[in-house]
Amino acid sequence: MNSMSKSEVTPLKFESIRYDDVNDRVYVIDQTQLPHQFVERELHDLDGTCEAISAMRVRGAPLIGVTAAFGVYLALRNPAMASRTTLDEAVERLAATRPTAINLQWALNKMVEELAGSGDDELGPNALAIALRLHAEDIAACARLGDYGATLLQSLWVEKCRAAQQAGEAEPGQLNVLTHCNAGSLATVDWGTALAVIYKAQEQGLPIHVWVDETRPRNQGASLTAWELARRGVKHTLIVDNAGGHLMQLGLVDCCIVGSDRTTRRGDVCNKIGTYLKALAARDNGVPFYVALPVSTIDFSLLDGMSEIPIEERASDEVTHMTGRDAEGVERTIRLTPENTPVSNFGFDVTPANLVSALITEYGVIEANEEALAELRLKLSE
Amino acid sequence: MNSMSKSEVTPLKFESIRYDDVNDRVYVIDQTQLPHQFVERELHDLDGTCEAISAMRVRGAPLIGVTAAFGVYLALRNPAMASRTTLDEAVERLAATRPTAINLQWALNKMVEELAGSGDDELGPNALAIALRLHAEDIAACARLGDYGATLLQSLWVEKCRAAQQAGEAEPGQLNVLTHCNAGSLATVDWGTALAVIYKAQEQGLPIHVWVDETRPRNQGASLTAWELARRGVKHTLIVDNAGGHLMQLGLVDCCIVGSDRTTRRGDVCNKIGTYLKALAARDNGVPFYVALPVSTIDFSLLDGMSEIPIEERASDEVTHMTGRDAEGVERTIRLTPENTPVSNFGFDVTPANLVSALITEYGVIEANEEALAELRLKLSE
Repeated sequence: MNSMSKSEVTPLKFESIRYDDVNDRVYVIDQTQLPHQFVERELHDLDGTCEAISAMRVRGAPLIGVTAAFGVYLALRNPAMASRTTLDEAVERLAATRPTAINLQWALNKMVEELAGSGDDELGPNALAIALRLHAEDIAACARLGDYGATLLQSLWVEKCRAAQQAGEAEPGQLNVLTHCNAGSLATVDWGTALAVIYKAQEQGLPIHVWVDETRPRNQGASLTAWELARRGVKHTLIVDNAGGHLMQLGLVDCCIVGSDRTTRRGDVCNKIGTYLKALAARDNGVPFYVALPVSTIDFSLLDGMSEIPIEERASDEVTHMTGRDAEGVERTIRLTPENTPVSNFGFDVTPANLVSALITEYGVIEANEEALAELRLKLSE
Repeated sequence: MNSMSKSEVTPLKFESIRYDDVNDRVYVIDQTQLPHQFVERELHDLDGTCEAISAMRVRGAPLIGVTAAFGVYLALRNPAMASRTTLDEAVERLAATRPTAINLQWALNKMVEELAGSGDDELGPNALAIALRLHAEDIAACARLGDYGATLLQSLWVEKCRAAQQAGEAEPGQLNVLTHCNAGSLATVDWGTALAVIYKAQEQGLPIHVWVDETRPRNQGASLTAWELARRGVKHTLIVDNAGGHLMQLGLVDCCIVGSDRTTRRGDVCNKIGTYLKALAARDNGVPFYVALPVSTIDFSLLDGMSEIPIEERASDEVTHMTGRDAEGVERTIRLTPENTPVSNFGFDVTPANLVSALITEYGVIEANEEALAELRLKLSE
């Protein structure tokens, strides 16, 4: 991660990870620099890829998966190094970068399975071909799930307008969607999961307004989701994570849509810490709570999300310190707390399936229960 | 607010507001400087008092009430200015500083009622006498409610130890209490409300550990509660506001205790934004949810907290910007978001009475319902 291109102006079109086939280079957006600076960095090798995932320069379950696939390619790219041993080591090191998002393991499994028949001299080219395919499939899957989700939002909008009419109220101005963390194009190659639904709905002409949870401790909502939505011209309002329940009580949220880092075969949803609290508030206020995810996020080997999903704990300075720009545009890191305050910093929580209104996948919208997921699994195996 | 004494070292004993009767001076701790610096500032006059409340140099419902009482005194202190007109103006201006905490109105009502019979020349001295009495009463009320609450925690601890014994598990190491915002000595004259319970329980030898919610956007948990608890030697761990639900799911929270800015006569509790989300998680996990409050926080004129309590909305830079110290100890304010991100910033939310396990008051622990509160009201009028 030593060559980079900086820009205060973002390109109109970007992918969170992209492959330059003319020069054989893999680039990612360094998301730790957003929203202040749009920086693309080249991933040179396995080390750089592991660092980029661990340090959350790339983050978001689907994007981590695709990035890991390219990491395997980068490890095998030099023909002199391409071997089973190199492959195994790359997979092991990449798998250890982050524990919770299952897409990482899913992508690595794909690589291992599909490279099983390759000779050493084919490992590099074949790894690249698989990574490029996963890259393309991620874009297509997100676009499809966005379409399915947009249909859901269309129904909500029709219902909201009808209810207002029946109550003799003015036509509603907008459909209010609350989202947590960043499940946008920056969490995938393009489109996003939760935000794909929003982008597609807006394309279809729905008057969408998004409540953006700040998402402490890393502020992915404030720094990434707000940036993405502004860039794509989606109306939005930033709120602290504490505010969502109050907004739901006031009737200002028509639905919640979040992403997922891992979903069990009964529909328990592991996602960014705090998701569970919003799901509780949604239930308490009769607000639909949707989870948008490509099927690569489903871990069919697990049933009970609470006891079976490993929850990552991260460094305490994510909580005690914060980085941003001062009035002169200089990057500063500040401490918010007394020195040496003890901290606990779980990265994710689990929302039990019974709080989830539906799962929005690239194969359609399904209920969050074991039967529906078993049916989906059958469809996937066909 | 122009004379001040700075110190990196805090005095062993302090009051959030204190009156120096030798020099006729009123001092408050400037809480916007904590945890980095302990700064006492003199309140010179009505303007300074209004500014201190509006800018949240003093905050916390009970402390705002006592501060407003001293503000009335400061307005009337100069005999040449002491009149009904001055009193009325002072009350009106102080009442407008912050809308949600009812203690402000409560204290101002006390002043007006008790000064009703005073001649102009008595207004100043009598206002001071009342302010000093409210000051002393606040300390006593908080100490008493702390004792009542500590008894509750004792019961929880006995129960926790018994349950562990019955399950054949090791003796529990600690009683885990989660709190939101700062309902500590800094929110009152001394002791606090939620934290009074904790201080008293620790004095009685209970092995207390406190989960401290960061409390965005102003971080009163991270900056004030963590500071207070460290200073008094109470074991604690700072968490982001998103984490409490997950901790409850893991069984790591034995109860929640929060303060209140206004509580209705049926027990709906208005408190710092985000309180409602913790109450929902507590109910979902069978965790008792207590609210500690002096009776001055109860607004018997209101029934329905959701529709009747005015909820303060504050400036958007509380969300988009953050102030702290850099590695060199220099105070810096940084922006976290894209420029001009739209923000909504409600300061409080309402937790409906049915989510509240009990109210801890200086008159005892009561249920959060209309009957129990009516009984308390009767007791107060006797």
